[in-house]
Amino acid sequence: MTTESVRVAVAQTVPEFGAVDRNRRRTLEIVRKNADADLVVLPELATTGYVFESESELADLAEPRDGETASAWAEAAAETGTWIVGGVAERAGASYYNSALVVSPDGLEGVYRKVHPWNEEKRWFAAGSDLPVFETPFGRLGVQICNDQWFPEATITQARAGADLIAVPTNWVPNPDGDGRPGDWTAGVHQAVAHADANRVWIACADRAGTERGTAFEGQSVVVAPDGVPAAGPAPADGEHVLAVDCDLARARDKSLTPRDDALADRRPEVYDLG
Amino acid sequence: MTTESVRVAVAQTVPEFGAVDRNRRRTLEIVRKNADADLVVLPELATTGYVFESESELADLAEPRDGETASAWAEAAAETGTWIVGGVAERAGASYYNSALVVSPDGLEGVYRKVHPWNEEKRWFAAGSDLPVFETPFGRLGVQICNDQWFPEATITQARAGADLIAVPTNWVPNPDGDGRPGDWTAGVHQAVAHADANRVWIACADRAGTERGTAFEGQSVVVAPDGVPAAGPAPADGEHVLAVDCDLARARDKSLTPRDDALADRRPEVYDLG
Repeated sequence: MTTESVRVAVAQTVPEFGAVDRNRRRTLEIVRKNADADLVVLPELATTGYVFESESELADLAEPRDGETASAWAEAAAETGTWIVGGVAERAGASYYNSALVVSPDGLEGVYRKVHPWNEEKRWFAAGSDLPVFETPFGRLGVQICNDQWFPEATITQARAGADLIAVPTNWVPNPDGDGRPGDWTAGVHQAVAHADANRVWIACADRAGTERGTAFEGQSVVVAPDGVPAAGPAPADGEHVLAVDCDLARARDKSLTPRDDALADRRPEVYDLG
Repeated sequence: MTTESVRVAVAQTVPEFGAVDRNRRRTLEIVRKNADADLVVLPELATTGYVFESESELADLAEPRDGETASAWAEAAAETGTWIVGGVAERAGASYYNSALVVSPDGLEGVYRKVHPWNEEKRWFAAGSDLPVFETPFGRLGVQICNDQWFPEATITQARAGADLIAVPTNWVPNPDGDGRPGDWTAGVHQAVAHADANRVWIACADRAGTERGTAFEGQSVVVAPDGVPAAGPAPADGEHVLAVDCDLARARDKSLTPRDDALADRRPEVYDLG
């Protein structure tokens, strides 16, 4: 690893609802198998599955941020020298969050709580209230979860805070009227392309696949470079896949597009109404 | 025309640099040929061409907002009952703007001045300082020009102001490293898809085609529906094309995605840092 070339692996998995031990074990196998990666990105709610039907189910499956998953990922991270970003159902007192743990070889570095919960998630999960950027040995790491990408302000906020790479654990579901996109790309891939391009950042989306309690997920995990072009993927819609790609994060630190144009400095906040 | 179904025609033209009379005449022919449209969108700098090489060239070719082009478009608009949004080089005192005229059957309704000029445009054109939304008989109309689309704040601002449809006169140039996008879509089409989807608005992009003074333009004019799916186009990269499509603007007035989700109300401005 150099500070310029960072090996990012996005892991598309097929969790089984409620089978936390089984799902966690699979994420550990993937991390160990991709020990040459500097960062492994896992899907949203990678250990529990997504389609909760009651709060008591969530109460049974959620864990504190420093729970068993954090410990297990930290052990694998220490073994492999790999950072891990992956989604868990977090219990914090009487509240639950759709969160992503950020784990390094030194242990739990931080937690990102989804700022924009989607649909039924709002029944179970409180919303996060922060879009942090994490310092790593290889660069600055933003984290978003799924629906956050439909709010471009999230990527702008993290790019302004110096994010080189945004890791996106996700559980994309089909757009009910989403036909007609080229390459059959799901909407989330287009969002990643647009935001990577507009903010000149790397965006690494790890989606889940499979069908759970009647809900189908889209796969198509992808790593998009700062010019908006996929550097790896999209993966197939079905099944487990790992995309590993060497990302030159220096490309994200140069926001100039021409000698006269700069992706961040050319913003005109005084003209926008975003309140 | 009903308030729900609005016929929008985006006209992809091939202007000749400096041939203002010829280029204007062609736009008038297109408007008259598409008299059944409620709105015709023409490219950026549709009358002058794009690749200026000196301020004196611009001084020769620019015109005041109520100049000959506004008059000619107003005459055609009155004849056909069609609104027109199209790009001109605007002279205003000692300043020049890369502008779009908004012309109705009643005459000049307003002017949009590009807020985010691109590259060499910054040598010739002052920047606009407003992202207005225009009232029309068929709905609320936002206007952006080309590079504005790389700043998602523009679409968010106009969607919050009630824009149903955003007309985008554009002159897309190839991304120097833009290979690998599906369907060979140029980056601007992906931006339109992402912003239409995230804000639930119609976006109608009229690009130019052809090569001018060594600069090639991308064509691929497109009309994107509020679900982020192209309703017409993208047009071929080369040559003149008109895409006409009936747009149900009521779809843009419903920001709900599910009973629990709303594209605008779910924004979290208190969490973003956009200053």
